[in-house]
Amino acid sequence: MFRLDPVFERLSRPLASLALCEARLMDDARFPWLVLAPRRDGAVELEDLAGADRGQLMAEIVAAGRAARAVGEALARPVAKLNVGQLGNLTRQLHVHVVGRREDDPCWPGPVWGQGAAAPYRPIDLERAMDAAGRRLAEADRR
Amino acid sequence: MFRLDPVFERLSRPLASLALCEARLMDDARFPWLVLAPRRDGAVELEDLAGADRGQLMAEIVAAGRAARAVGEALARPVAKLNVGQLGNLTRQLHVHVVGRREDDPCWPGPVWGQGAAAPYRPIDLERAMDAAGRRLAEADRR
Repeated sequence: MFRLDPVFERLSRPLASLALCEARLMDDARFPWLVLAPRRDGAVELEDLAGADRGQLMAEIVAAGRAARAVGEALARPVAKLNVGQLGNLTRQLHVHVVGRREDDPCWPGPVWGQGAAAPYRPIDLERAMDAAGRRLAEADRR
Repeated sequence: MFRLDPVFERLSRPLASLALCEARLMDDARFPWLVLAPRRDGAVELEDLAGADRGQLMAEIVAAGRAARAVGEALARPVAKLNVGQLGNLTRQLHVHVVGRREDDPCWPGPVWGQGAAAPYRPIDLERAMDAAGRRLAEADRR
């Protein structure tokens, strides 16, 4: 039975249960940052997903990119580039990061993973970010 | 008309022209590291690909992961974990990195991007790596 790794519960907030993935927003105001975790027990690598799931994951990655852009707009920091990463070197449960980047963000042009400490959102910004991302994901889900 | 960004010509060697992507091996003996560049002029983000291309890219990412594992086996350094990244913060042409990781590699557990300098292969190892990756990609392409 699928159970989300507790590390995601600690570092992120639930946005939506998509067709395949749990979509979450990282509580890190440095970047509009979503994590997608396919509800497939034991999956570690992309190759562990069945073919149909792989296609659905790609669709949800694109939707998460749109949600990251929506967070950037909501916080008046539009996204300039999307970064997508599937690493899992420390947290093995299959998950995909979708991160909105800007040239003035603290890690540009390097990757965000393993860099510095998360800067939790102010409550009002977290609410705006969750709302913007959640609405965009809901639109994608209806299509 | 599609033309591969010259940065890939400089840092990597051609492995195969897959259905969608040019597949290349990074000339960096630190990691079995493939790069996939979809032959789609002007594409920067995953969302720039048509739906069918997105599914094909996912299939080629999985094939590239198998090729990275084959390189690891050929060089007696089996891959423990695959890392997949689509960043493009510096080189905008859409491309996906597929990297075989080990706990004893110089960047573990962090990401490889932007870390240190490439360590070019010895000629004999480059030949072995190209051969192993190329054969594995050819198998995937026939399926």
